[in-house]
Amino acid sequence: MEYNKINDKDIEFIKEVVGIDNVLAGEEISEDYSHDELGGISHMPDVLVKVHSQEEVSKIMKHAYENTIPIVARGSGTGLVGASVPIHGGIMIDLTEMNNILELDEENLTLTVEPGVLLMEIGKFVEEHDFFYPPDPGEKSATIGGNISTNAGGMRAVKYGVTRDYVRGLEVVLPTGEILELGGKVVKNSSGYGIKDLIIGSEGTLGIITKAILKLLPLPKKSISLLIPFSNFDKAIEMVPKIIKSKAIPTAIEFMTRDTILAAEEFLGKKFPDNSSDAYLLLTFDGNTQAQVEADYETVANLCLEEGALDVFIVDTDERKESVWSARGAFLEAIKASTTDIDECDVVVPRNKVAEFIKYTYELEKEFEVRIPSFGHAGDGNLHVYICKDNLSDEEWEKKTKEVFQCMYRKSEEMHGLVSGEHGIGYAKREFMFHQYGEEYVRIMKEIKKVFDPKNILNPGKVCQ
Amino acid sequence: MEYNKINDKDIEFIKEVVGIDNVLAGEEISEDYSHDELGGISHMPDVLVKVHSQEEVSKIMKHAYENTIPIVARGSGTGLVGASVPIHGGIMIDLTEMNNILELDEENLTLTVEPGVLLMEIGKFVEEHDFFYPPDPGEKSATIGGNISTNAGGMRAVKYGVTRDYVRGLEVVLPTGEILELGGKVVKNSSGYGIKDLIIGSEGTLGIITKAILKLLPLPKKSISLLIPFSNFDKAIEMVPKIIKSKAIPTAIEFMTRDTILAAEEFLGKKFPDNSSDAYLLLTFDGNTQAQVEADYETVANLCLEEGALDVFIVDTDERKESVWSARGAFLEAIKASTTDIDECDVVVPRNKVAEFIKYTYELEKEFEVRIPSFGHAGDGNLHVYICKDNLSDEEWEKKTKEVFQCMYRKSEEMHGLVSGEHGIGYAKREFMFHQYGEEYVRIMKEIKKVFDPKNILNPGKVCQ
Repeated sequence: MEYNKINDKDIEFIKEVVGIDNVLAGEEISEDYSHDELGGISHMPDVLVKVHSQEEVSKIMKHAYENTIPIVARGSGTGLVGASVPIHGGIMIDLTEMNNILELDEENLTLTVEPGVLLMEIGKFVEEHDFFYPPDPGEKSATIGGNISTNAGGMRAVKYGVTRDYVRGLEVVLPTGEILELGGKVVKNSSGYGIKDLIIGSEGTLGIITKAILKLLPLPKKSISLLIPFSNFDKAIEMVPKIIKSKAIPTAIEFMTRDTILAAEEFLGKKFPDNSSDAYLLLTFDGNTQAQVEADYETVANLCLEEGALDVFIVDTDERKESVWSARGAFLEAIKASTTDIDECDVVVPRNKVAEFIKYTYELEKEFEVRIPSFGHAGDGNLHVYICKDNLSDEEWEKKTKEVFQCMYRKSEEMHGLVSGEHGIGYAKREFMFHQYGEEYVRIMKEIKKVFDPKNILNPGKVCQ
Repeated sequence: MEYNKINDKDIEFIKEVVGIDNVLAGEEISEDYSHDELGGISHMPDVLVKVHSQEEVSKIMKHAYENTIPIVARGSGTGLVGASVPIHGGIMIDLTEMNNILELDEENLTLTVEPGVLLMEIGKFVEEHDFFYPPDPGEKSATIGGNISTNAGGMRAVKYGVTRDYVRGLEVVLPTGEILELGGKVVKNSSGYGIKDLIIGSEGTLGIITKAILKLLPLPKKSISLLIPFSNFDKAIEMVPKIIKSKAIPTAIEFMTRDTILAAEEFLGKKFPDNSSDAYLLLTFDGNTQAQVEADYETVANLCLEEGALDVFIVDTDERKESVWSARGAFLEAIKASTTDIDECDVVVPRNKVAEFIKYTYELEKEFEVRIPSFGHAGDGNLHVYICKDNLSDEEWEKKTKEVFQCMYRKSEEMHGLVSGEHGIGYAKREFMFHQYGEEYVRIMKEIKKVFDPKNILNPGKVCQ
């Protein structure tokens, strides 16, 4: 596809639509907009447009379509696979100022928001009203539009599921500029193909989300975490399927090793409640009564102690909660700070395969002589595995990451896992997905992309391209 | 599209694939296969094929594709919108004998099944193992393949969601005969477009489901229902948003009127616990302890009594449960038995609009002089509204149903409702969906259908066609 280069007339048009103060071009644009947090790819947009309404998005999209100019939507830029990088330049639509919470509907248990509202703002707002938005990705400064576009998961998926499960309705601007309303406040929907579910997780390649209707739950009244140390990694991680099998339903089951905890302590300059053991499980339980939550967690605490846990720390004071969860939230940043560069694998495997997968990464560490720390959502099989550059040359690192990735994705495929649990495919993980899915599956995705975007102007080169 | 007529060579080929005993042709086929429970449309297939494996489905599909023969999948035939009717004749694939439960995986909380397993068999099997498959459509003799194809909802959607929320993985035979594996046992998935979610609810038009991996929950240990009589319909139905707003989470909230109860009593020859009031809410609560369930239902019981409920009957004995739920399960059959013919509207509206919608059907009853009983899932906004033929002539009835449907779907649209909450679009509801969705939305669905089925052989004339 030959794209047209942005010219002065295009910029003139865009300025008319959104106002002169909301358009930056060329060197006025900060370098921040050329990359995300970890995509390994960067490219500057030619023009950056801050939008404030669906109408603006629609007019600009229509203009891009008619003039065959590439266009990319961006939220907070917290992605990890390069999905929002404008690799062909063109127009970048910045949605962070479309950040109004439009309506809390207590009779339908829905929250209607613009796409630029941050995850942390949603959490704060609904909790003040005694409601609960369960998806809980670690990166709280992500926008809800970005979360929907990657079908973000997070820590509470064990009990509550992922972003997809909490999107009742969407308003989307298509690459032609046309607007679709998908779903709504309704609880059930068997009215034609699941187009809403196709937009969710499509990483900004099929349309730009301009409004979302989210499903809320009543806020659970009690929540308690358990921090459970084990003498070694095997014992910790092999507990997970036993916990699931016990039919207790924790909200979250995270695992972490001492290395990661020490890195987080150093990064934050704060102490973790305990760092004397090699491996830990961190579990959360929530519910409406103290008695109910206690009954749930006692079952699991006793089970862990029977199976060789060294102790069970109950994390119930505000201070302890803050210490544990701030460390958990800082793992990625702490690992980044501990080395010169990192690359990440966000594989998801059936949850009884987590131990086997992590052990395999330990073998890879030895085989390739590279540091591969990991942590993750043991309760839902979604692992975050990092390859650290440390003292490697660029060349060595590129070679090693490639080889290690190939090994890891091959292993995941053997286990009937998938390439991405929650970070998406974007630019960085396409080849691994292509390899796993095979020709026909990829053909279907490519053709669907064409149905939405016949001129391939919207976020080209991503996901299935 | 010009289809080829089945010939002797085709039948020969099919017999080679599945064995001679599994093929019926022409007049050997029972008339039952020409229609579903309520589609208002019927057409005989030319050949009926009982399949027993994915390979058989794939071979027959490939043959149909190469020879441009229409092909339709059928489960138990319990649909209500004509989705499984072979309106162009051709091959009917009967999946009811692909009915093996393949695996219960207690470590991943999944159940792997063939598509012909009945909903009642799944319920029985998992409960024997102390697990729970939450979707609970009234029609328990439906196949799971049919349930996935319509994204069936049912009574427990208030708390637990619908079929879509419990499908972790699918194996699907495409119209070309190629096989796709979608999802798996994994809990999270951000690996490319949501093709699995596109298949769910596509009513057998994009592929034939040959295997499903279902998500299970631990079986709640306690369950109690409340039957709450009100002096009139308004009072009953206006309670529903108040209950939702109270932040109690019932498993189900059903509403019913005396007329429907009397019809069910007559149909079953069994007494309902109470029939002295005009309108009732039937609520269920479940949980793991008696104390927890009691705390939940007492909040709601007291709220209802404060707001004018006449009484609260606790349905906790096996006998009472059987009496209440067998009546609830028989409503559709009872209404059918009370008249000469019926047609149905399965609209879904935001749940605080249920009262307004039902009141509107009462107005339509008067305006059009036709009986319009209704019952439904008040807690999730999904209503089942029936137009009864009674003594009307065919002509009058056709005219009236058309007009009444137009009024009802227009009203639902005004309320931001949708055409179908759980029964699907199939053949019968296409025009109403087209009207609501508009050109671009329908174009996208049509084009997606082409991506999967370029020769339009699989269940043509349904959903978006």
